[in-house]
Amino acid sequence: MSERLIVIGGCAAGMSAASKSRRVNPDLDIVVYEKTGFVSYGECGLPYYVSGLVADHHKLVARTPEQFARRGIEVHLHHEVIEIVPENHRLRVTNLDNGESWYENYDKLVIATGGRPSLLPGFSLGDLSGVFVMRALEDGIAIREFIQRERPGRAVIIGAGYIGLETAESFHVLGLETTVIGRPPQVLKRFDLDMAKLVQDELEGKGIRLSLGDEVKALEGDAQGRVRRVISSKGTFEAALVFLALGVRPNVALAKKAGVTLGETGAVATDAQMRTNLPDVFAAGDCAEAYHRITGRSAYIPLGTTANKQGRVAGTNAGGGHAEFGGIVGTVITKVFDLYVALTGLSEKEAQALGYAVKSTTIKASSRAHYYPGGGPMHVKLVAEEGSGRLLGGQIVGGEGAGPRIDVLATALHKEMTVEELSELDLAYAPPMSPVWDPLLVAANVALK
Amino acid sequence: MSERLIVIGGCAAGMSAASKSRRVNPDLDIVVYEKTGFVSYGECGLPYYVSGLVADHHKLVARTPEQFARRGIEVHLHHEVIEIVPENHRLRVTNLDNGESWYENYDKLVIATGGRPSLLPGFSLGDLSGVFVMRALEDGIAIREFIQRERPGRAVIIGAGYIGLETAESFHVLGLETTVIGRPPQVLKRFDLDMAKLVQDELEGKGIRLSLGDEVKALEGDAQGRVRRVISSKGTFEAALVFLALGVRPNVALAKKAGVTLGETGAVATDAQMRTNLPDVFAAGDCAEAYHRITGRSAYIPLGTTANKQGRVAGTNAGGGHAEFGGIVGTVITKVFDLYVALTGLSEKEAQALGYAVKSTTIKASSRAHYYPGGGPMHVKLVAEEGSGRLLGGQIVGGEGAGPRIDVLATALHKEMTVEELSELDLAYAPPMSPVWDPLLVAANVALK
Repeated sequence: MSERLIVIGGCAAGMSAASKSRRVNPDLDIVVYEKTGFVSYGECGLPYYVSGLVADHHKLVARTPEQFARRGIEVHLHHEVIEIVPENHRLRVTNLDNGESWYENYDKLVIATGGRPSLLPGFSLGDLSGVFVMRALEDGIAIREFIQRERPGRAVIIGAGYIGLETAESFHVLGLETTVIGRPPQVLKRFDLDMAKLVQDELEGKGIRLSLGDEVKALEGDAQGRVRRVISSKGTFEAALVFLALGVRPNVALAKKAGVTLGETGAVATDAQMRTNLPDVFAAGDCAEAYHRITGRSAYIPLGTTANKQGRVAGTNAGGGHAEFGGIVGTVITKVFDLYVALTGLSEKEAQALGYAVKSTTIKASSRAHYYPGGGPMHVKLVAEEGSGRLLGGQIVGGEGAGPRIDVLATALHKEMTVEELSELDLAYAPPMSPVWDPLLVAANVALK
Repeated sequence: MSERLIVIGGCAAGMSAASKSRRVNPDLDIVVYEKTGFVSYGECGLPYYVSGLVADHHKLVARTPEQFARRGIEVHLHHEVIEIVPENHRLRVTNLDNGESWYENYDKLVIATGGRPSLLPGFSLGDLSGVFVMRALEDGIAIREFIQRERPGRAVIIGAGYIGLETAESFHVLGLETTVIGRPPQVLKRFDLDMAKLVQDELEGKGIRLSLGDEVKALEGDAQGRVRRVISSKGTFEAALVFLALGVRPNVALAKKAGVTLGETGAVATDAQMRTNLPDVFAAGDCAEAYHRITGRSAYIPLGTTANKQGRVAGTNAGGGHAEFGGIVGTVITKVFDLYVALTGLSEKEAQALGYAVKSTTIKASSRAHYYPGGGPMHVKLVAEEGSGRLLGGQIVGGEGAGPRIDVLATALHKEMTVEELSELDLAYAPPMSPVWDPLLVAANVALK
């Protein structure tokens, strides 16, 4: 009889694990249980579906259950795994459509239960209509339908992280007067304040209202239970639509109950092969920690890229192959209107909080040769260890070239480069894409002074 | 009395050397002799000046002699150094405006005589009017004036390298019927044929006629000495404008006569401090070799980026500081109509010619998330050493993201990464800038199969 792999969760990590284990082991029985109505969708695309830039939500789906079936991967939607019994290699599933539950056996198990959106303390999502989170594809569909149907004039986004800001742009595109309330005194809290301010200027320049260093006290509704305003420590904001973008926590209740060890971050702890402490049980994606190459510790930075890589590793090992996850350096990027905003490694404040003696350098350069039309400013911040000169992190805010340029710094971090080595890089130059001294080299040269 | 630094050549390398030595040593007397009428201009911008995209040639000039004078750098235009007498730390200068010559002393000397355009064998530039090279700013001005005045309907470009192709685009923009003749059977000869073909398709798709694997036999003119046609091994091409884009050779006659040692490439050999074999004589830029980090040998790949870096190193050392040039990995990029075409390290054929056992991988990926509008194909080729998996080079052909992405590979080459390490990189992801699996990661994963 074939071995049976069960994957809990059809998100990026889960489907990567399923696909990879299929390639590694053609004989494996592979079953995926997914709570929602979709697998393998581009969660990061939801803000662009809400704005209408992506017209059809089917476009966000990379592969349907039918397509997975043709690869010999059995996907069950609206099925929730509610219990794992590791001693017996068993688990219990509920069909959410009809309420039936049953036990079944696994030989290998991949936990890819993902993350769940944080909520306001003391507030449940059903309390008022017009209040949304965005995690499942259904969430995006619900927000878009709500906007089309209710035509809310004013929206408040609570949370000034990536999803909050990307969705602020989407709301703005749809003509909504949009306010973003954030508890930290800046947007994008991992970034240093000097870089975050550039983003804040961009947002306010486009007409987004920001209320930062502000704490939400209550959501108030009308007699019909429709949200109408947000009460914060700084004031009252009228809103017919409230989007909670308070970040994501690892969805680990099931794993924890089964005896899976969690790490300090609260997410599932794994080894480099994505094995949990339980035999034959792997974890991957937004429910799991990731090894951070700079700090040498486990981190919780839930992202699709990491989820996909971890899923492949878990799937390879679950299928009987061998793979190890190389870890992260904490690279993130977001597009905020016309700015790309990217970070890799540690920001200055993150490095300081970890006890590093830090030397930071911030420069503003042009994205193109000075004579070539269409260039714009590019802001680069390098964070290095005082003394050794080892690069600890970088932040870039600028036009389209900012994105792949952060990847140069991410690559440098993977290989523990110093700022001096960075300054020696033989980077490409053509007038339409950079000045003869690439902004990264300018930053490195200034840092060396 | 202050020490006296003389810089021969006001190109990128020469002016970088002068500027850097000024910063290192405020007491130094610094004199630059430049043959042409301009220093510190963006040579790589000339094709865009010819097309009119850069309206005014003054825009190509980063700094004027007056600006250098304010930094305490004395620049003499139309002055040619015609002899170096290293035994006496002397050299002889001619003022090209009045023909006067004189000897003067130097304490330190930087040779930055640059490159000179290759010509057709047996052909002198003065033989026919309407035949141009492009090297000095004056060359660009002459071509643009010629086109405005003579309105040549047809142009032939001889040479299918970067400058040839960039200028083909410029001519096309100006409405000229343009043919590019190249001796190798492909454009951009360092690239592998599969990548070059993508560029050829782009050129032909835009209406540029290509005649490759073709050798020019003669240029023919009319009774007034105006060029009228190009005779090649494959046929006759009508042309009222011929642009010779046959590449650049190191301009080393002066140095050679003075006893400066040349390397195997024919360019000036230097150590990592950019010192030549002669005491107190440095060389930098397109007249000099560069250490190639992949091959471990000296290479001649004349580029503005390398020239600037070498100039800084020469200037630092000439000023009494200490710096070493970190070498190149052979990174180049060009924009050909809507394609960015980039190479770093060794192409497959270059690696094979050097005796490497090579494994190459070519993939086509999307430049953006599949659902995000505006993406296009990105072609990535990785060249790795069989067995060790060490990355030897990469080529990318695609849209705007191709440029900085080649820099990720250049960074990987600096640190001798393997393809497996490449596959582990924590690269940035946002739907507008890449798929969740960046094209580089896709390529690395395919290469690992």
